[in-house]
Amino acid sequence: MHVENLSQNRSFGGWHKQYKHQSASLNCEMRFAIFLPPQTARGEKVPVMYWLSGLTCSDENFMQKAGAQRVAAELGIAIVAPDTSPRGDAVADEAERYDLGKGAGFYVNATQEPWSQHYRMYDYVVNELPALVEELFPVTDQRVISGHSMGGHGALTIALKNPNRYRSVSAFSPICNPVNCQWGQDAFRAYLGEDQAAWQQHDASVLMQQATEAQYLPTLVDQGEGDDFLNSQLRPETLQAAAKASTYPLELRRHEGYDHSYYFIASFIESHLRFHAQNLGLLSSI
Amino acid sequence: MHVENLSQNRSFGGWHKQYKHQSASLNCEMRFAIFLPPQTARGEKVPVMYWLSGLTCSDENFMQKAGAQRVAAELGIAIVAPDTSPRGDAVADEAERYDLGKGAGFYVNATQEPWSQHYRMYDYVVNELPALVEELFPVTDQRVISGHSMGGHGALTIALKNPNRYRSVSAFSPICNPVNCQWGQDAFRAYLGEDQAAWQQHDASVLMQQATEAQYLPTLVDQGEGDDFLNSQLRPETLQAAAKASTYPLELRRHEGYDHSYYFIASFIESHLRFHAQNLGLLSSI
Repeated sequence: MHVENLSQNRSFGGWHKQYKHQSASLNCEMRFAIFLPPQTARGEKVPVMYWLSGLTCSDENFMQKAGAQRVAAELGIAIVAPDTSPRGDAVADEAERYDLGKGAGFYVNATQEPWSQHYRMYDYVVNELPALVEELFPVTDQRVISGHSMGGHGALTIALKNPNRYRSVSAFSPICNPVNCQWGQDAFRAYLGEDQAAWQQHDASVLMQQATEAQYLPTLVDQGEGDDFLNSQLRPETLQAAAKASTYPLELRRHEGYDHSYYFIASFIESHLRFHAQNLGLLSSI
Repeated sequence: MHVENLSQNRSFGGWHKQYKHQSASLNCEMRFAIFLPPQTARGEKVPVMYWLSGLTCSDENFMQKAGAQRVAAELGIAIVAPDTSPRGDAVADEAERYDLGKGAGFYVNATQEPWSQHYRMYDYVVNELPALVEELFPVTDQRVISGHSMGGHGALTIALKNPNRYRSVSAFSPICNPVNCQWGQDAFRAYLGEDQAAWQQHDASVLMQQATEAQYLPTLVDQGEGDDFLNSQLRPETLQAAAKASTYPLELRRHEGYDHSYYFIASFIESHLRFHAQNLGLLSSI
């Protein structure tokens, strides 16, 4: 597998690096970022946290704004941030919309034209990118996954559908029930067509309600009470009800006054990293 | 004094807020950002760190990328980030240049047309903005100052010229000797004219070499060895020689591999905040 290094910055004793590569899943050139903690320079292999960003984002938002590297460096966790959709002139788009097309891949495999040519972010995140990362970088196959908003939806649904591939999952302000909100309905109708059964396969609340014990993963969700999208798009109460119905191990925390921005993520990313570190066996139990 | 609140985000138990106001010094509308740590919500007044950003930046870069709020919240320090130049359609600019005009005020009072109409960032940072902040927000008149690159130049020169207004000063990758580098020479020629004596009044190395004991302030400078501008524009060795000549209390640290980006700042901002906290009397001596 060939990747080209685009940039590198020393960060908390480790390295932040951006790469581009030709993605087979997405049929286009893709960029991703990786934070390699200082343990890797000493010959250690470290586990990986995959971070899925929200609408309009690229690989850069989390790496620049979340302040995650400090704790990842301390704990010895690599962070991989993919882009949020396929990219390039050949890729279908809705240029006037921020919530469909480029920057809005929704972590599904599109089945509908014209999207199905490139919009296969589910395969990319679940299979192609981890295979590439585990071949090229000093990391183990121990993975955790997290994300924000659309990326929180991605992290939760991918973990629920692939519980054996991850040790734990977390999310900030996830779209918890996309089949019942505008963002999710518009994206699923475009990418997956009118078949509601296909939509439900990418809805965290539906999947969590159906989950059996074999699918349980430690799950942490943070939601700001001052989030402008809380009631219209995110609806964590639906996820909570689903977890209750299936006795799924969800910890949902609500935070007064916090909004949908990276100021919220930065405020609580440390506790997500420590949660994942514990599930990766990097910390002794509390 | 009238200010208008533009945005607010909860951050580490405190608040990040942006304001705009009509600046008398700059003769235009200006935006600034403030981080108010959680102590202020409990009725405490806290000291302020002024952060001066580098070329092309606004009030947003540091607040979004440096990850300073965590430690500022712990220590009880407010952070104020002004913009880097006057703004607006009426303000002179060199649109094709990033290092002159808007985004490049260099923290001086311009004496040359057309710049002298608005480019008075020195007065704004030293006098107008602190007066406004200390009137409107729950802060004391205990101040420290820091900055990056052009803003490191600003922090060092402003502290050297006003040692009684600050408890300590720090800088990341400052332009240490602007009278001898392209960025500084171009800016000083435009804003201050051909009079080299005027230039020297805004050169940290010149001022530090001339400093007497009454002007000494605890001073911390961090410089990355992988910084592309190290030898062409920054020249910390000049500052170090100046400090040696006047026995000025400069601590200059060099960091292998780190570049000019906010990844460098984020990696070391905690130690700058703790340095300032100690000089503000917020920590017991070590």
